[in-house]
Amino acid sequence: MGTIEGPTEISSRHLSTRMSTLRPSPIRALLRLVDQPGVLSMAGGLPALSALDADRVRAVIESVLDHGGALGPTALQYGPTEGVDPLRRRLAGMLSAELPTDADDILVTTGSQQGLDLLARASIDPGDVVVVEAPSYLGALQSFSVAGARIVAIDGDHDGIDVDRLAAELAGGLRPKVLYVVANFHNPTGAVLSLDRRIRLVELAEHHGFFIISDDPYGELRFAGPPLPSIAALGVGRPVSIVRLGSASKILAPGLRVGWMTGPPALLEAAGRLKQSADLHTSTLSQLVVAELLADEGAQRAHLDRIRSRYRERAGALSDALGADLGERVDFSPPTGGMFTWVTALDGTDTVELFPRAIDHGVAFVPGAAFSVDGGGFTGSLRLSFATLDPTRIRIGVARLIEAWRP
Amino acid sequence: MGTIEGPTEISSRHLSTRMSTLRPSPIRALLRLVDQPGVLSMAGGLPALSALDADRVRAVIESVLDHGGALGPTALQYGPTEGVDPLRRRLAGMLSAELPTDADDILVTTGSQQGLDLLARASIDPGDVVVVEAPSYLGALQSFSVAGARIVAIDGDHDGIDVDRLAAELAGGLRPKVLYVVANFHNPTGAVLSLDRRIRLVELAEHHGFFIISDDPYGELRFAGPPLPSIAALGVGRPVSIVRLGSASKILAPGLRVGWMTGPPALLEAAGRLKQSADLHTSTLSQLVVAELLADEGAQRAHLDRIRSRYRERAGALSDALGADLGERVDFSPPTGGMFTWVTALDGTDTVELFPRAIDHGVAFVPGAAFSVDGGGFTGSLRLSFATLDPTRIRIGVARLIEAWRP
Repeated sequence: MGTIEGPTEISSRHLSTRMSTLRPSPIRALLRLVDQPGVLSMAGGLPALSALDADRVRAVIESVLDHGGALGPTALQYGPTEGVDPLRRRLAGMLSAELPTDADDILVTTGSQQGLDLLARASIDPGDVVVVEAPSYLGALQSFSVAGARIVAIDGDHDGIDVDRLAAELAGGLRPKVLYVVANFHNPTGAVLSLDRRIRLVELAEHHGFFIISDDPYGELRFAGPPLPSIAALGVGRPVSIVRLGSASKILAPGLRVGWMTGPPALLEAAGRLKQSADLHTSTLSQLVVAELLADEGAQRAHLDRIRSRYRERAGALSDALGADLGERVDFSPPTGGMFTWVTALDGTDTVELFPRAIDHGVAFVPGAAFSVDGGGFTGSLRLSFATLDPTRIRIGVARLIEAWRP
Repeated sequence: MGTIEGPTEISSRHLSTRMSTLRPSPIRALLRLVDQPGVLSMAGGLPALSALDADRVRAVIESVLDHGGALGPTALQYGPTEGVDPLRRRLAGMLSAELPTDADDILVTTGSQQGLDLLARASIDPGDVVVVEAPSYLGALQSFSVAGARIVAIDGDHDGIDVDRLAAELAGGLRPKVLYVVANFHNPTGAVLSLDRRIRLVELAEHHGFFIISDDPYGELRFAGPPLPSIAALGVGRPVSIVRLGSASKILAPGLRVGWMTGPPALLEAAGRLKQSADLHTSTLSQLVVAELLADEGAQRAHLDRIRSRYRERAGALSDALGADLGERVDFSPPTGGMFTWVTALDGTDTVELFPRAIDHGVAFVPGAAFSVDGGGFTGSLRLSFATLDPTRIRIGVARLIEAWRP
């Protein structure tokens, strides 16, 4: 009976409509080229390996597995979906520095990426509007897209998302269900949302009834400038829903996959219910390790100080090299925290075209198009991470980038 | 204007339609009562704490964190979505004992629960039919329900799902997209799907074009009877899609949250794409620990032998106690592997009503209704786990159950 189908054809009949229409990102395919020997990568958002304190982690794991002989096996056993008590209590204490938070108000997640995904699934009906800042974190775009959201991107600048523009869209009839924002050291732009705009966002959320997801993986990585009140703190006492997402990935270790979420009861409860079927719970061992690492407040403070000073130095090296060598051809703002510098070409360079030339010259970045909702924007921009490489390698990387830049 | 809304009312407006219609399970609320001091629990599917080899895990973690000084930080760093190479290679070797499997054909998941959830999201359009065996694993029902599936339950017996009944439904026009099956030591019934039924299932899948999810967390826990060929092995060379789900939870440690999936390319690729936004990747530390534990094949074989002989002893103690004391009032089959015994009352006892009395008497089980698609079936049955308690406690537990049984 005709040709025999191969396994791919047979199994693709079993995909849902959405999966069979979601095309793999061409940028992702491009980024596979990053991991080649000899390529200095400023592409990934990877913390410096030297910033991951393996010695302290090893000591803590031994203590977690040894503890009274009883906690040991507990670290290997099933745990509650919402997270283990020691971690939830510890996080509540930490978050209470900003806003009073109970352990019961915390859902531990498998990285904050899971928090985003659970929230998208808990809140989005197909066609619901989600507002994001453009450019935007790719992982957030993916979670919202898979949930069927219509994503509306509002441009940002050095002060974060353009709130006037958002207000105008809302006045014009835009009815978002969710606004997603990274207020501190935005990925990919490094921008810090200004205080004025934070206040306006909360007012708009109250007036128009959307809720805010405030994703804050980089807040602790501030190495210049004063801290600003969080969006959640600005929302206190107002009838607004604000969900905060946090992560151990940038302050301890991404490989542990521990994040957390706190916010209004119905959303938290719904996210928790979805987490039951998503992965039952987050690794018990990882949770207890993070709880124990955070428990030693002095050591953690010293650890954060080390990371901040290291990233300050690296960000400075990157800014200096870019300013000295590409100054007239690019625009960028020296970052005040986080892990990223956003560079925009002033000479018409297309960064997707630049990418393979850069790889040939032994340096990698992420083309701006990767952070575009439709995959076609920001063709003149690129993201550089200053977290992964030391200053010397950063300078060599920028020199290689300049070589590649010349047509 | 008017009354001020509380945070719950505000945030519940932000739920998606599906979440606001999914009601929390009353059985789950009941099961919160299990964790009371003094209650001997045969409710949870928790491996014996003594079966979790914390010493071996500690040694392996030290080796993972020490390894050449370089692998240490790697265990704490971001990793690829599909899983780290050492684990994928190790799993491929292990699975190849049954069916040739490449490392590239494996997607590592955050427990096999995540595998189920990703598959449900990758394949199900709202209204698509999923066939399950009744009673069924609650976590599977949740994942399929959240994805919008219409779940059709086909009764099972001591030989697993009733394939004649399924064939009749298919002949009558039932058009499932997926069939979900736990062929070895089913949860909750402990049944092993007979060879004849395995063969028929594969034929039906081929003829009617549905795909099979073969979930096998308990296959290695056989302590009596001969092994049977897997459904995947029976499907070789036929134009059928069969996805295999595996898990480290019952053979090593559930707290690590490591599972795996292998199957046809399109489904695997789609599940991997969803995993990017679901949690980026599974804990790198957990993956490397599992890879290292499995690498010592002699130690792992000895470990499995110990678990099997421990569970054999406990299953025997449970069967003996049930037979001696409740023999005339219940029906059950002595299990040949896995972790569970399914007990059905012959005297009209309602196990949801029995539950609070049992808790009062200091023993816990899971009422059969927890495994029913509509939450209302199997009111005369209950699930007992023989994995968690030692034989003495199992005998005391059964004695307490009998006390509670008497009205």
